[in-house]
Amino acid sequence: MHSSGNPTAAVLVIGDEILSGRTQDVNINTIARFLGERGIDLKEARIVSDDMDAIVEALNALRIRHDHVFTTGGIGPTHDDITANAVAAAFGVPISHHPEAVRILRAYFREMGREETEARMRMARIPEGAELIPNPVSRAPGFRIGNVFVLPGVPRIMEAMLHELEKHLAKGTPVRSVTVEARLPEGDLGDPLRRLAAEHPDVSIGSYPFHEGGCLGARIVIRSRDAGALERAVQAVRSLVGRLMTGAGE
Amino acid sequence: MHSSGNPTAAVLVIGDEILSGRTQDVNINTIARFLGERGIDLKEARIVSDDMDAIVEALNALRIRHDHVFTTGGIGPTHDDITANAVAAAFGVPISHHPEAVRILRAYFREMGREETEARMRMARIPEGAELIPNPVSRAPGFRIGNVFVLPGVPRIMEAMLHELEKHLAKGTPVRSVTVEARLPEGDLGDPLRRLAAEHPDVSIGSYPFHEGGCLGARIVIRSRDAGALERAVQAVRSLVGRLMTGAGE
Repeated sequence: MHSSGNPTAAVLVIGDEILSGRTQDVNINTIARFLGERGIDLKEARIVSDDMDAIVEALNALRIRHDHVFTTGGIGPTHDDITANAVAAAFGVPISHHPEAVRILRAYFREMGREETEARMRMARIPEGAELIPNPVSRAPGFRIGNVFVLPGVPRIMEAMLHELEKHLAKGTPVRSVTVEARLPEGDLGDPLRRLAAEHPDVSIGSYPFHEGGCLGARIVIRSRDAGALERAVQAVRSLVGRLMTGAGE
Repeated sequence: MHSSGNPTAAVLVIGDEILSGRTQDVNINTIARFLGERGIDLKEARIVSDDMDAIVEALNALRIRHDHVFTTGGIGPTHDDITANAVAAAFGVPISHHPEAVRILRAYFREMGREETEARMRMARIPEGAELIPNPVSRAPGFRIGNVFVLPGVPRIMEAMLHELEKHLAKGTPVRSVTVEARLPEGDLGDPLRRLAAEHPDVSIGSYPFHEGGCLGARIVIRSRDAGALERAVQAVRSLVGRLMTGAGE
């Protein structure tokens, strides 16, 4: 499972509000599910603060390793939004007001009766060589430069913009997964499940304990891109759990 | 604000289930709030899969940079739990069954009427030189080695164990924060808020847009360790927002 040949991706979340604990990040989860459905392996996520050096360093580490990198946060109109500048610095390119972004924002502000402030027009500043990503919710665009997609932090807008990216993404074979619930403590499962996993190398098997209604159990998640291997492993896990729960041993 | 002299920390979340999108991480947020209250700056968080090389590399990168590193996940009894081995590899030390951990687990399994399986006893495997972290919920201990605290992924247990760490932590001056709500679009705030932020270098000012009940607005979060500087900046922000909302200009 670890070298599937599928495209790989990383997420870089930018924002003091996540690291201070003030805000619970939900964008990593949204992007993870979006990528999984398209057969792209999310290998890594990082959260850094609104700090130029931290953003540049993390972005440069991630973009050379992965086919796609998604950043969220820091592209609004206020002084703490420094992502566009940091991305330009990471790529070593200048940044300036992008004519098409200026046009989009001006039309939107006119329509909404909002004043065209310097702060608002900062949202049109785009690194040289980048291509705009449309924002179907509040117009201010994101952008793509190289293999990096720069998206806003507001979850509803981020998710809408993610769906604008289909054409840019190298896709793979989606992983399919089946969950088998075992009403047994994980410790009873560990040894036989280890042997079973060794016999099914083309699937990945994870075990996640739960405690519900006074009952200890584990959800066994079997994942694979190979439908046949998945089915064989699922049957083997079901049969193992059945034997263990009825005390029939292995 | 960026070099406060306070201790710094990083979080490393380990688990395929987070990167596949199956599970929403909540541990980063819990640890962030815990550290914030103790004046420890959470600088960075990373999420990696249950992969030996990925864990070792991320852990070694984080532990040399920060005063404290917290890992969550991958210390259960099943084959996909490889965190203890990866931590031993990162520190270049052997791993074996820790006598005190064996004693704790045996007593617990006896008490609960659970069989002592090889899988269960894997939870007693601890890198050489590490010290146990008590688990007040389900007994299986975490451990500290150097500046790294190894904790489980189950949020309720992770949080209980975090509170066992007080004595190990270098503490700083907690950041205090005040939020001022402005019922104004962020774009109207951007320019004057930038000037205000420049006049108050001892505080950090973040602006977080919201859209509630048809009303656009921004929460302006002012943060500082200096109570006087915080109070002065809060007054300045309140006064600015008041002027902008009543149309009195700047």
